[in-house]
Amino acid sequence: MIETNQITEALQKVREKSPLVHNITNYVAMNNTANALLSIGASPVMAHATNEVEDMVGIASSLVINMGTLSEKWVEAMILAGKKATEKAIPVIFDPVGVGATPYRTQVAQQIIEKCKPTVIRGNASEIMALCNSNLKTKGVDSTLSSNAALNSAKLLAKSTNAIVVVSGETDYITDGKRVTSINNGNTIMAKVTGMGCTATAITGAFAGAEKDLFIAAVSAMAIMGIAGEMASEVSKGPGSMQMNFIDQLYKISNIDIEQRLKIKYE
Amino acid sequence: MIETNQITEALQKVREKSPLVHNITNYVAMNNTANALLSIGASPVMAHATNEVEDMVGIASSLVINMGTLSEKWVEAMILAGKKATEKAIPVIFDPVGVGATPYRTQVAQQIIEKCKPTVIRGNASEIMALCNSNLKTKGVDSTLSSNAALNSAKLLAKSTNAIVVVSGETDYITDGKRVTSINNGNTIMAKVTGMGCTATAITGAFAGAEKDLFIAAVSAMAIMGIAGEMASEVSKGPGSMQMNFIDQLYKISNIDIEQRLKIKYE
Amino acid sequence: MIETNQITEALQKVREKSPLVHNITNYVAMNNTANALLSIGASPVMAHATNEVEDMVGIASSLVINMGTLSEKWVEAMILAGKKATEKAIPVIFDPVGVGATPYRTQVAQQIIEKCKPTVIRGNASEIMALCNSNLKTKGVDSTLSSNAALNSAKLLAKSTNAIVVVSGETDYITDGKRVTSINNGNTIMAKVTGMGCTATAITGAFAGAEKDLFIAAVSAMAIMGIAGEMASEVSKGPGSMQMNFIDQLYKISNIDIEQRLKIKYE
Repeated sequence: MIETNQITEALQKVREKSPLVHNITNYVAMNNTANALLSIGASPVMAHATNEVEDMVGIASSLVINMGTLSEKWVEAMILAGKKATEKAIPVIFDPVGVGATPYRTQVAQQIIEKCKPTVIRGNASEIMALCNSNLKTKGVDSTLSSNAALNSAKLLAKSTNAIVVVSGETDYITDGKRVTSINNGNTIMAKVTGMGCTATAITGAFAGAEKDLFIAAVSAMAIMGIAGEMASEVSKGPGSMQMNFIDQLYKISNIDIEQRLKIKYE
Repeated sequence: MIETNQITEALQKVREKSPLVHNITNYVAMNNTANALLSIGASPVMAHATNEVEDMVGIASSLVINMGTLSEKWVEAMILAGKKATEKAIPVIFDPVGVGATPYRTQVAQQIIEKCKPTVIRGNASEIMALCNSNLKTKGVDSTLSSNAALNSAKLLAKSTNAIVVVSGETDYITDGKRVTSINNGNTIMAKVTGMGCTATAITGAFAGAEKDLFIAAVSAMAIMGIAGEMASEVSKGPGSMQMNFIDQLYKISNIDIEQRLKIKYE
Repeated sequence: MIETNQITEALQKVREKSPLVHNITNYVAMNNTANALLSIGASPVMAHATNEVEDMVGIASSLVINMGTLSEKWVEAMILAGKKATEKAIPVIFDPVGVGATPYRTQVAQQIIEKCKPTVIRGNASEIMALCNSNLKTKGVDSTLSSNAALNSAKLLAKSTNAIVVVSGETDYITDGKRVTSINNGNTIMAKVTGMGCTATAITGAFAGAEKDLFIAAVSAMAIMGIAGEMASEVSKGPGSMQMNFIDQLYKISNIDIEQRLKIKYE
């Protein structure tokens, strides 16, 4: 069970340590995620050249791999960086954007899981289910998934990968295969802003770079995302102002905001 | 002649169907266009890997090809995706950004027109004129263009390509070579926000993915762009707030806004 | 010594001439910098294909090379464009983002300086120091740098490259190796918005494309950045609104704003 003060303390650690988060991410969300990382107190770096990703990840506190707009050369870089990070015990956060939409995406996601051994995987319900399915299949394990059971998929995926798995949605679930914590903050308009999921993954990278307990880090990231999103939605007129206000709220979010608004549950 | 209710109905279709719009577009405008598509009610996907574009376009309702920041590998992907879309009768919307500025752009635009057979082409006056010119030339047809006649170019281009051609500017012209509809909404500050043209093309993709009559789709897209732009400009202090407010207005635009503001003409 | 009216006149020239600024820049800041260039009155173009960069730079008023998210193909394009620009006496503005962070970055920065002969180099203190160090080293010159002396590094770098060197930070320094001008405008929240440095470099490109005296151009760019940033910060609630308001202010900045707020010093 995670106490509210573990979340506020994790946020404090991010702001004090200002972890360098190395992102190999998609073109659409780069600007948003860089701004989100700066606003929460982390230090973003984006670098994808195979000539330098190993050096770059070597000086980073965490690595975020997001396959939103993937291509061969970038996948090569993701794997190089991910292997190096794992070697150096730097947490790897993986966002399998669109896995299941095309065979290529499914294959790349599988490859990244096998070679980079991510410590946290974050996706929406359909991504986590697709990923779980393909992961079990490639391991010759029969899927025991019921069709809508994203949480079940998340648990199975966590067990088969040893990663903490985050399913984001109206309710966010965070599981290590045994424990399940859920966050009920946020607002539906967040789904109308591009790259919000990618931002959640990047923010998880920030917390994983500052808080050693990765389960606390993942829960804290989703709590902060939800609460900042909730506060931003209250002063926004549409997705455009929402995108802007969300960044402002990440910057301003206080312990009191967290204490008053956090909706957390344990299974 | 297009009635106002055909435009409001097309918008309704976009919001109900939430068409998946596959974009192969430029780096500058990706975030804007993804947000614009979400705000109007469509579902954007950006994917450019040659390993997956054919699969991705296969599940899409329309394909937007925008050559703003082109390079060889991306052009290859554009053509693969465009051919597959044409094969499957998925509408292809083409934005020949900067055609005429360099020989490479002119050549790529020509190639895309020949191989992808776009159903709608949208550009500004100078792009449409450059494209018309090169298209006629490469077909060994003498140009009969007078120098400033973007509308004439648009008609000729429409006839020689079988595409609906949109010339955007202070007045937007939509033509299939015979019919011409013009839209007089919008505000000059739109030209101070990067990627507004690219967004118009993407929004055309959204309408083309939901409204079968592509002429209605193109007219509707330009009408919505103009009206949302006009409303956004009334509450904006400069190009920065304009970019944000425009997204909010796309999200909020109502039938009444359209009925009260639409300035449409038929030739 | 630069008079205030030289700055307001340079701004006037940018707005009248609307110089075409060719940017080969990073994915994160492309949207910001394009909007900033439009807002200040310039005309941005982003193009990076080796098939066209020489043609594109040939019609441009200045070239901005920014190595934020570099890769081999892009470096090739940077060098092709830079050489062509130098050949045609088009000013080259170089932003050595992250130089020193990885050996690859240091090597690329060195290569660009040697082959493209930038006329202005802009970076933060640590970038300018790293660049100076590597530049002196590769020339077999002993470094005489004291550890925190970014201004000294800037002077040495300016002398060894014949470029005007800009060190941006709380105080911005502009030097040609002999003269030093400093600007004390701006606000610390600018550092919380991604790509502000990249925007400063792009704005320098705008001024260099309109004002022949490149020292005046560089000073004017930093003055405008600082003053617009200062004004934006006064109406912003966080980094999100700051990013938006900054673009609005670039668009609205007037001679009176400059005259009333400019904090300039000469050594």
